[in-house]
Amino acid sequence: MMNNLKLFLRYDGTPYHGWQMQENAVSVQGELTKAAERILGHRPTIYGCSRTDKGVHANIFCCNFRTPVSRDCEKIAYGFNAVLPESISVLSCEYTDDGFNARFDCRGKEYIYKIWNDRRRNPFLLHYALHYPHELDTEMLNRQCADYIGTHDFTSFCAAGSSAVSNVRTVFDCDIQRQGSLVTFRVHGDGFLYNMVRIMVGTLLDINAGKLEKDSIPQIILEKNRLSAGVTAKAHGLYLNKVYYD
Amino acid sequence: MMNNLKLFLRYDGTPYHGWQMQENAVSVQGELTKAAERILGHRPTIYGCSRTDKGVHANIFCCNFRTPVSRDCEKIAYGFNAVLPESISVLSCEYTDDGFNARFDCRGKEYIYKIWNDRRRNPFLLHYALHYPHELDTEMLNRQCADYIGTHDFTSFCAAGSSAVSNVRTVFDCDIQRQGSLVTFRVHGDGFLYNMVRIMVGTLLDINAGKLEKDSIPQIILEKNRLSAGVTAKAHGLYLNKVYYD
Repeated sequence: MMNNLKLFLRYDGTPYHGWQMQENAVSVQGELTKAAERILGHRPTIYGCSRTDKGVHANIFCCNFRTPVSRDCEKIAYGFNAVLPESISVLSCEYTDDGFNARFDCRGKEYIYKIWNDRRRNPFLLHYALHYPHELDTEMLNRQCADYIGTHDFTSFCAAGSSAVSNVRTVFDCDIQRQGSLVTFRVHGDGFLYNMVRIMVGTLLDINAGKLEKDSIPQIILEKNRLSAGVTAKAHGLYLNKVYYD
Repeated sequence: MMNNLKLFLRYDGTPYHGWQMQENAVSVQGELTKAAERILGHRPTIYGCSRTDKGVHANIFCCNFRTPVSRDCEKIAYGFNAVLPESISVLSCEYTDDGFNARFDCRGKEYIYKIWNDRRRNPFLLHYALHYPHELDTEMLNRQCADYIGTHDFTSFCAAGSSAVSNVRTVFDCDIQRQGSLVTFRVHGDGFLYNMVRIMVGTLLDINAGKLEKDSIPQIILEKNRLSAGVTAKAHGLYLNKVYYD
């Protein structure tokens, strides 16, 4: 009999070429697969809730795989943490319904994007927040964020090379808040296209810098053209922050 | 004419063998001296407010040196940040009184020590907080902290090899607070002996673990014996957090 094991992870994406296993590149999925092989004695196919990019972090990430092992879950979590690189932590582990799939059953995700908005760089956030040394009008940008909310075709916010069948996604909530020099963009949606959050942030930064017009997001969405939106903000400020399941 | 230049820094201590310049080891003072040589054209003697140990961080650090250069301060700060490693940031730069010395004029310092108190490690805090997976009774420990306050001979909290003439120091304030899984110890005093803060934290952890008795800090202080106090907590949780001048 095969069990379906669900894991929640947290990882620092700095040393990884993203979630997905690739030839000749260190990935979170690859490290987790190797760890599973060591502690469970077989090499499972691990399904992740998302493909995070190179350098993107996860405060929470869900994955699952099938295993004949039926050991105590706490021991499995402990085993993973003993053999995984320290930059990945298994937060919890449980046996779940046979039909559960971390990717297809995911009902929504929240991403955050951190910006260190200060003339001086912050040595502690070099890999954990974008350094943006110019003035950032977060009140104005927070009003722009409201234009992302809703069900839209987000083609303008999708990097070339995406294999998505439909580019329609629903953004439930979106805002940007300041705490001292740390500015945090937050977006909760039912799903996200390739690079979508980073382009949403880059578009806000381009509006802030006057490269794109204020209140232009509805028009950018309508144009369904990647060239209408702003730059793709760097990966290292981005965190998968929450994942939602029924 | 020589100017006296005062700098405030922030640095991530992870890659450094502490503040002080040494043969065959990378230090903050060494990097700063090299940077000064590049941007000012001479190799100054830099005086630091403190000698932080290997791996210890600084949210704020003050230093000064003499220079014949009289360039605009903002340009000097900019120059330093352009050539320094990214793990060091010059926060500010100003010309000060000729007599000012960052070490001898320092009237007090605040250190913080961060503890990640959770069964699971935090990948983002590997080098920035001690991972303590066992239960931590912060209310009880906060009561113990009160016993550090006052003017005492802190010989029991001083590592061997210290060259201090007197081991009497005044702790103005000391507490430990929890925010979720992050526990922060904070101490403000007129000065600190070698490893003093790390031994204060290690002693609290030993009290928490039952290796030392509750309410034993006054007695440990009285014994003036390093062996009476607890372990030296690891360096990577420690931050110089504030420095006070008249």
